[in-house]
Parts: sequence; C-alpha cells; structure tokens
Amino acid sequence: MTVQLERSSRHGDLGDDLHGDLAALVGRRTPGHSLEAPFYTSQEVFDLDMDAIFTRHWLFVATEAELPEPGDFVTVQVGRTSVIVVRDDDEEVRAFHNVCRHRGSRILDDACGSVGNLVCPYHHWTYNVDGRLLHADNQPPTFDRSRFGLTPVRVRTLAGFVFICLAEEPPDDFDEVAARIEPYLAPYELGRTKVAHQTDMIEDGNWKLVMENNRECYHCDGHPELLSAYFPLHGYTAQDVPPRLRRVWDRFEKATADLQAACVRQDFPVERIRELDSRPTGFMTFHSPLDGAGKSYTAGGEAVCRKRLGSIVDDRFGDFHLHLQPNSWFHLLSDNAVVFTVLPLSPGKTFVRSTWLVHEDAVEGVDYDKATLTHVWSATNSQDSAFVARTQKGVADPGYQPGPYSEVEGDVDAFVTWYISRVRAHLSRPRPSVS
Amino acid sequence: MTVQLERSSRHGDLGDDLHGDLAALVGRRTPGHSLEAPFYTSQEVFDLDMDAIFTRHWLFVATEAELPEPGDFVTVQVGRTSVIVVRDDDEEVRAFHNVCRHRGSRILDDACGSVGNLVCPYHHWTYNVDGRLLHADNQPPTFDRSRFGLTPVRVRTLAGFVFICLAEEPPDDFDEVAARIEPYLAPYELGRTKVAHQTDMIEDGNWKLVMENNRECYHCDGHPELLSAYFPLHGYTAQDVPPRLRRVWDRFEKATADLQAACVRQDFPVERIRELDSRPTGFMTFHSPLDGAGKSYTAGGEAVCRKRLGSIVDDRFGDFHLHLQPNSWFHLLSDNAVVFTVLPLSPGKTFVRSTWLVHEDAVEGVDYDKATLTHVWSATNSQDSAFVARTQKGVADPGYQPGPYSEVEGDVDAFVTWYISRVRAHLSRPRPSVS
Amino acid sequence: MTVQLERSSRHGDLGDDLHGDLAALVGRRTPGHSLEAPFYTSQEVFDLDMDAIFTRHWLFVATEAELPEPGDFVTVQVGRTSVIVVRDDDEEVRAFHNVCRHRGSRILDDACGSVGNLVCPYHHWTYNVDGRLLHADNQPPTFDRSRFGLTPVRVRTLAGFVFICLAEEPPDDFDEVAARIEPYLAPYELGRTKVAHQTDMIEDGNWKLVMENNRECYHCDGHPELLSAYFPLHGYTAQDVPPRLRRVWDRFEKATADLQAACVRQDFPVERIRELDSRPTGFMTFHSPLDGAGKSYTAGGEAVCRKRLGSIVDDRFGDFHLHLQPNSWFHLLSDNAVVFTVLPLSPGKTFVRSTWLVHEDAVEGVDYDKATLTHVWSATNSQDSAFVARTQKGVADPGYQPGPYSEVEGDVDAFVTWYISRVRAHLSRPRPSVS
Repeated sequence: MTVQLERSSRHGDLGDDLHGDLAALVGRRTPGHSLEAPFYTSQEVFDLDMDAIFTRHWLFVATEAELPEPGDFVTVQVGRTSVIVVRDDDEEVRAFHNVCRHRGSRILDDACGSVGNLVCPYHHWTYNVDGRLLHADNQPPTFDRSRFGLTPVRVRTLAGFVFICLAEEPPDDFDEVAARIEPYLAPYELGRTKVAHQTDMIEDGNWKLVMENNRECYHCDGHPELLSAYFPLHGYTAQDVPPRLRRVWDRFEKATADLQAACVRQDFPVERIRELDSRPTGFMTFHSPLDGAGKSYTAGGEAVCRKRLGSIVDDRFGDFHLHLQPNSWFHLLSDNAVVFTVLPLSPGKTFVRSTWLVHEDAVEGVDYDKATLTHVWSATNSQDSAFVARTQKGVADPGYQPGPYSEVEGDVDAFVTWYISRVRAHLSRPRPSVS
Repeated sequence: MTVQLERSSRHGDLGDDLHGDLAALVGRRTPGHSLEAPFYTSQEVFDLDMDAIFTRHWLFVATEAELPEPGDFVTVQVGRTSVIVVRDDDEEVRAFHNVCRHRGSRILDDACGSVGNLVCPYHHWTYNVDGRLLHADNQPPTFDRSRFGLTPVRVRTLAGFVFICLAEEPPDDFDEVAARIEPYLAPYELGRTKVAHQTDMIEDGNWKLVMENNRECYHCDGHPELLSAYFPLHGYTAQDVPPRLRRVWDRFEKATADLQAACVRQDFPVERIRELDSRPTGFMTFHSPLDGAGKSYTAGGEAVCRKRLGSIVDDRFGDFHLHLQPNSWFHLLSDNAVVFTVLPLSPGKTFVRSTWLVHEDAVEGVDYDKATLTHVWSATNSQDSAFVARTQKGVADPGYQPGPYSEVEGDVDAFVTWYISRVRAHLSRPRPSVS
Repeated sequence: MTVQLERSSRHGDLGDDLHGDLAALVGRRTPGHSLEAPFYTSQEVFDLDMDAIFTRHWLFVATEAELPEPGDFVTVQVGRTSVIVVRDDDEEVRAFHNVCRHRGSRILDDACGSVGNLVCPYHHWTYNVDGRLLHADNQPPTFDRSRFGLTPVRVRTLAGFVFICLAEEPPDDFDEVAARIEPYLAPYELGRTKVAHQTDMIEDGNWKLVMENNRECYHCDGHPELLSAYFPLHGYTAQDVPPRLRRVWDRFEKATADLQAACVRQDFPVERIRELDSRPTGFMTFHSPLDGAGKSYTAGGEAVCRKRLGSIVDDRFGDFHLHLQPNSWFHLLSDNAVVFTVLPLSPGKTFVRSTWLVHEDAVEGVDYDKATLTHVWSATNSQDSAFVARTQKGVADPGYQPGPYSEVEGDVDAFVTWYISRVRAHLSRPRPSVS
C-alpha cells in the first residue's frame, strides 16, 4: 500500500485497498435509493469526487457578464485548486492556475477585479493576462522566461457561460451537448447581460446533497416564495389531478400551449431533452410556464425587469430550465436569468454561487428593483441550505440507512445514477503503476 | 487490510493491524497507574470506546421527569448517533434513531420539546411517536409503509431514570444490577419529581478523564463549595485521624450512625455495594452523611427545598451516591437530586449534562431558590471542567508518562480497570470476516 | 505495517510504507528549486519535521533576560511538547516537561511568570524548581519520591540566549559552533540586557516557509520600513551597480570599511562565516552597515536607545546578523537586539516570537521609546506574515510546482539543502524494530 502524503487531484493514484473499498462501495449502490453514508461524509469519497468528477468534467464557473473588459478576472476555487479566469487583451477568456511559477505564492486574492498584468505580490514576477511571464528579477543568464508562464487551465464559453475543465482529456461529448444546448440559450443573448446581483453561500452539506436537493420539488412545500410562481400541481398528472385543482390544471394546460406557440412563432427550440444519466455531460432542458401573469418569479407572476432579454418578444415566456451535470442549473426568464454553480469544499461543506443577470442596458432602480428581482431565489436558497444541512446531519448518523425515492424524485435518481456511472468509469481506468 | 471509509459504531470492523495495535495497548496497561496517552488522545481509541463501551452498554441519558406527558421528547447525541427519547401515547418511553427513513434528514433539532407526531421537515414523512410511518406522499403502489418505521433503539427506565443501549445484545447483567439498585432509589420516588434546572457543558477533555476526575476526591481542595457540605476528613481513617480533627471525626461517626438508623427505621437498604470493576454493569452505592445541619448541599448543611422527596421522613438523610459505569453518577438527598451523564464527542471533547430534580409539587421561589439549589454543583462542575482540560493538555504532551494512583484513588483505578476489561472483552469477540 | 495510534516525537517509528514514501520524496528534491508541496502541507512531513528537526536539534527558545531571578520561568511549546524553562535557586537555567508525574496534568499555564515551587494545581504535587518532587499526599509507604521528579529537558545558554534540545543525543557539533559564535556575541553582553518588548504571532504557513522567507531579501520591496535602514543596493554587486546608484555604492563601501575598522579596533571578530548547509548546526554570521546615520533600524539610521549594549564604543556599528538552523535569526545593533524564534504548530501554522532587548539600565520613556524601537520589525513581521500566508495557499494548490530560485536566494537554497540533508540523515538511522 502506498501511503498518500498528499491527495492530489491531478494524479489520483489510490492505494490498492482504498481502490478496492471504493469500488465495492460504488458497486453495491441500490438503484432508486439514496446513497450510502460514506458518499456524503468520508474524506476518501470526497477525494474520489474531486478526482473523478470535478477534475474530469467541464464545470460551469462564471458568466461572461462578469468579464466585460480585457483584464477583468474572477478567481474560482475548485477543491484546493484556485483558478484565475480572465479576459485577455484579445477579448478571449483565459484560465490559469492562481499560483506563481517561482515559489508558489498565490497571485490574486480577490474574488473578482481588473488587472493590467498579473503580478505576484511576493517577488513581483509579472505575467501578461495571456499567461506569458514578462519579467522576473535577478535571474541567471540561463533562465528561460518562456518556460515559466502561468499554468493554463482549459476554458470555453457557451452562449455567455464560462466553463473550465481541469482534465488533460475532457469528456468528448461536451461539444455535442453544447451544440444541442446553444439554440435554447441563444434567444436570451446572455452575452449582452450584466450581473445585477451575486451571492455566495457555504452550505453545511456534501455537494451531492446540494445537487440532489436541486433535482426535485418533492420538498417544495418548504419554498412558499418559489411555489407562488409555479402552478400548484406538483406531483399530479392529467390522470390524477383532484377535482379541486381541475381549474388550475386547465390554466396550466393553456399556459403550456401558449408558451409552446410563442417558441414556435420565434423559431426557438421547444423540445424537452432529458439525458441526465446517459452520457458524460448529462443534461436536461425544458420550458415550463409560470402561473399568474406568467412572466417572472414573483407572487403574481409579474415581470421584475422592464428590459426583456435578447430577442424574446413575449414576456409571458415562462421559465427555461437547464440542468447540467455535475454542478449547475440555470433558470432563464424573459426578463432575467438566475444561474447556479456548486463547488465542493470538503465532505460536509459546499460553495454555492447564485448570479442574477439582466439586460446590459437595464438600470437598477429604474428598470428593476434588486430586492424584487432576487426575492424568490434568495429565500429559496436559504431554505434549501437548511434542508441540505439537516440531511448532512442525518446521513452522518450511524442510524442512517439509504431510503427509497418517491415517484417524483426521478431526477434525483438520474443524478445519482449519472454520478455512480462516472465514478465507476473513473475507477475502471488503467491506474498509474505504483512507484 | 480494509481501509475504513467510515468508522461505524454499528459494525466495528477493525483492520488487522489496528486491532493488533489496540490489543497491545490494552494488554500492557499497568494496574494502579493512569492510562497511556493514546487512550485519551487518539481517534482510534475514541472509535474503539464508541464501539466497545458506548455502543455496548446501557447509558443513562435522561430522567423521566423530562418526559412527563405523551409526545414529550428529548434528543440525545451519543457520538455521531442522535437518538429521540419520547413518551408515546400509551405513556411508554420509546427511543428511535433521529433520522428519516426516506433520504436521511435529521427529524428533530431541538434538545427537548413536545410533538404530536414525528414529522420530518424535509418531505413531511410522518411517524407516530411509537415509530410507525403514518404517511409519505407520492409513493408507488408497491411502497410498504410498515417497512419504513423509525429505527428503534433499546430503552428502559429504572426508578425514574432513562437508559438506552445501542447494542443488539445488551450486557446480560443489567437486570440484576437494576434489581439491586432499585430499592435504594425507590424511597426518593424520582418518578414524582420535576426538573428544577439542567446545564450542559462541553469539557475540553476525553470522557475517561471526566469519569476519573469524578471518581476521586483527592482533588477536592479545588472544590471549596463542595467541601463545605462534606466532613473535612478526606483521606483519613479512624486510625490516622489527627488530634485536631478528633472532634470532627466524632461528629462524623455520630452522623453516620444517625443516618444508618434513619434507613433502618424506614426499612431502606443501607449496605454499601461496590462492584465497580467486577461486572459489565459496574456500579457502586453508598450513603454518606453531610456536615453541619446535614440536610443538603449548602455551606451550613441546610435544606435547599422545603418539599422532601418521596417517602423520606428525616431530612438529615445525607447524600446517597450511585456511581454507574460507564458514564453516570447520581447524588440523591432528602430534598433534591443531582444527576450527571457523560457523553463523548471526540477524543478531546466531552458533553456533560447535569440535572437537578425536586419534588414535582415544589414551586420555584416558594419552596426553593434555584441559585441556592444549584450553587454547589455549578461551582464544582466548573472547577472539574478546568481540571479535566489541564489534564487533557498534559496527557497529550509527549512528555507525559502514566503515573501512580495514591491510596485515595481506588475508585479511579476501579473505573480504569473496568474500562480495560470491557475493551479487552470487546477485542476478543469473534470479528466479522473481512469482505 | 504498524498503525500509529499516536505519532510520538520521542519514538518516531514510521511504518514501512510511510518511511519509503518520505524517503522517496526527500530523495527527489531538485537543487535550486523550492520544495514539493507535501513538505509544506502534509501531516506526515510535519510529523517527520518534528522528529527529524525539532526533536533532534538545539532550538533557540528564550533569552536569559526573560529569567533574571530564581523562580522566573517561561513555558515553550514545541509541537505538542510544553517545556518549562526556569532559573533555579542556584541561578542555573533548567528545563522540564510541563507535565505532572502523577496523572499528567499540565502544571504551568502562563507563558511566563515567577514561582517558588512548581505546584501542580490538580492534586498539589509539589516540585522544587530543580525538578525534585518535594511533596505528594496520601502515598503508600512504598512510594519513592525520588522516582517522580519532573522529567528534565536538555538546556544550555550561549551568550545570553537559551537553547533546549529534546533529543537524547544532541548534534555533536553544537559546542564547536557555540565556541565560534560566542566571540561575535560577547561584545553585546546580552546577559546584561532586559526585554523591552516581545510579540508572538501565529503565521498561517509552514515553518519552512517562514524560514525561507527570512533567508532572502528578494521580497524586500515589500518592506519599506526595513529598506529605509539598509542601503538600497539589494541584488547588485560592484560589477553591475547602475550609474544612478554609484554614489550609494560608494557610501556603502565606506560604511563597510568603517565598520570593519571599528571591529578591528576593539578586537571583535569581523569575518563572515557561512556554514548554513554543511553541518548539523548550520549557521551564518556577518556584520553589515546601515545607511544614513548608520546606528540603528530607523528611517534616518539614528539610534533608538541612548544606552549602548555591552562594550561597544562606536554606535555606528551596523547590524550583526546571526542565522541559526533550524529556527532562529538574530539582529544585534549597538543599542538594541531583535531576536526571533520559529516553532511549528501544524503543517500550516507556525508560532513566531520576536524579542527586543536593550541595556538592562535603559529606562523606557527616558532612554528609549518603545514605538520607535519596535517600529521597523513590527511592520516587517506583519508584512512577512502576509507573504508566508499567501505562499502557503499557493503551495497547497494542486496547480503548484516547485520553481527555480533566483541569484539572490542562495541562503534559501542553503536552508532547504540543510533541511533535506538533516531529514535524509534521520531517515537513514537504524529504525526501532517493530514490536
């Protein structure tokens, strides 16, 4: 057995025993049931998740709206890895490890900002925003600056969203998924938005509990603000909707038809796609109408911003959902978008960033009120955080045993199934020989 | 070797090497000396203690006075295990794991309270206080509610005290011990008391240091308030009591005889029993007189509550001591009782709950003053906590080596001897075969 | 493999696998480059450092000025080991483990103070300041007090500085090094100083990052206060000093010659010694002049204390540097001394104590102003602490890779080379056979 002096998300060499234990744990997952406790609590599985999921897949980490000008940057923490995402002087989005090539000092501390060059504060090694080392004092004649540029990280944009991938070989289906998603996103012209608000939370739970919580509305009684925007029909189908909800159902069916017609009219795609667990880059897209005025997330369904996004002409355009494995979900409405990224910090701590986007020309206080814009999802985030924390406590209890999903938790099961398949694939890779 | 993804107190499968190391450590204990450092500091021994002691033995966790009515509950944390102790609608005391059978959410957050049903806040799975699952939404037709009741935990009461046991096979001598203790407790009628005060402390030391500290009065110079109630004769016997204390000794002997006579008069048992290290359920009982007025824990020995407990007619009834392995001690006086439970949190952190009981009809401000009632043991707890913390620091120091117990630390030695024998028995059990 | 129930800095028995991994890590160090990440971040290397470095070498831990009278003590924390350093009644400096020989209680809590005897607060075991157990209550007749004195720790003084060594066999070259250093220190008569100020910091970085940071001035642009005392010539030599600095260079050369002459005049040694990586007790000594008035650490180089130290007659006496491996550096000036000790707390936390000494007769407010005295190094410490913290963040990032030292980081390389050689020697020792 090789003792791990440091668990590296870059090499991922598990010892034989640990590899076997993890493989056994993964192998005995019961479909239709929540995962065994170690998936949520053990450092070993957390390390595995970092290796198998967060180091291998494309991760949504920022919006292009956060980087409008050359030199604008955000820093993103993925596990122990800090990444600088910066727009370079050619307006390309670049990503680098946030570590000086000299003696390893952190370069940028701030979560976002704007720079001319990237200058390490320790000994002033100076890098261009394209990563090249421009200057380092007191070097011997043999020093070759070109060998000491910032270490790049793969980065790509998709319809205004920024994704990074820490893997040397990213999943080969991302291009295909991007091509299928892009037409759904294009009408919103997210490249022409600005950040109206952004919040960061550290939730007291494993990242998978955060995702599982997002993937179902079985708990939505706990979200009164969110429910006020949706039709109160959760869990019902045309077959079993009770008489008292028949009128609501009719209203829902009409709104659905109207939304469908609006898409067809503008030649926007409207088909629901659900490939959550059948590919490396699992995803789901669908449009759903909103209740009341049907325009946005408010109690009466009224709009929250006077400027509509992109080329959308009908503000009764419902809620376009995009769910992406492993770590993000997106709600696009006619007048704003709310997008979410989930990044693990430790087995029991997870960072969640929520970003509200509005039209780049919208003016706060004139076109939108920030409190109204953010009311529903601020409340929902806070409620979800409490659910995740209490579940983390429970699954860490020796009294926990995996339980069965209900009929309305299919997307939770799909997330878990996707996760298990990705971890299994990772554990089946040829392993580096033990030195 | 099997890597432990999660140390489970329910399965306790130690790897071969760890098992051998622990057995060696246990095997080389020097009688009459304090334990080696790892017993107080290592996570491995802590896990062993949870397996061998806290998962195997009956633990005093609450008083019935905390659960007067159906639906009244307390939650108890034993290591990572949270247990709901609740009085059901038939007035029976029940105990369950505080974990929903659906996706594992913690059900109850509060330390105590009252409920109609036990409803998980996440998805509203609803359980009766007898544990049966009453309701769960959106289940498929195949869902069998009867399979998803709350997981029960063994619970029993003894003369007003509540004990739980997490083991599948509890120690087989508890019934016998209970039968021998019960006559001592019965006169106090603790089922007819109420909680006058309760305090929780987190001490900065291993649980065994908390217990060892409780098992001797060699340090009682550090407890001026407590000493004021006791005869100042600690460490002396009839043979070596110095002349200056001869009159105190005479007073002590008279008080002892009076107390004995009072017991005999009411047909209460008075024999001292000391079986601290000779059985799984180690225990000790004895009556000791108090100095001064001899009635209760106060500077002058005066009573602190006007209502006497149970059937006790003479308020000069001293201090009845019950010490129970692994985790509790009890002081019963004519007018109140103070009872203590010790629950490990980590190698260096221990939860200690102190509960003051008075007659159920006693009225605060009329029959007793809470500050007077709790003065001695509040001060004593605080002083003990400091002693435990400084000892934890010392035993964690590589400069520590086990030292010899003095002549007045016999009960400390008995506690440690009991502990070692229980751990040794645990390590000798047939182990689950490695999967 | 033997599972370590507790990592002991006294025995240091590494398992086979861990030993091999550490040896491989040490073996592949690239000269001229910063160390691989685990040296700064892993618990295993931290434990190794405690075994191989801090338990094996003489450590500067205090000044004699802190212990002017019998009974005066300081307590020092080296890893998990607390040591009492105390002046005994014969005025000898003694050191003991700060752990009672009874049940292991910590004896002294305070960082410094004065005592008559050393009395354990738990059960009042009482020790003389020479370590002998004087008294313990309630012992059996067989109890032999002489067997339970405080456990001694090796201690020695050198020209007013106190060193301890936790090893049974200290490095055999310390006497030789002491003999070579002593003549440099003697003129300052540090035994006749007093502590004017002392600060403790906990830096958020590995102890080696603290040392490496101290061993170079490549980052000194970040120390404007410190730079104001030095000639602004860092990194230049006579060959490459630019025209704009030629006059500064001339000034520097004259100051150097003056300082040399002052030493020769008083028969003080002046030779630079640099044996940082060629022996167990690596060290370096040199005199350097200061700019401006050339007397002390101030913006204009003016003196900060009216009383000169020792037998120094010329207050333009520059800055005498002493660097000692593993954990200290010293700046001696004509009117004060500032001395530093570095003690690891965990892989990412390090304790740094700074002590300012002035002549024992100097009076605060009359002869010196404390704010002026401490201004430069208080600012410098705070700046260094930030550099260390940001480097710790970076080296803990999977994006870190060791980088090359510049031409002015030779002493950093020497420190690291010394460290590697000491660790390698430790790992090559015959290991205790596995029990």
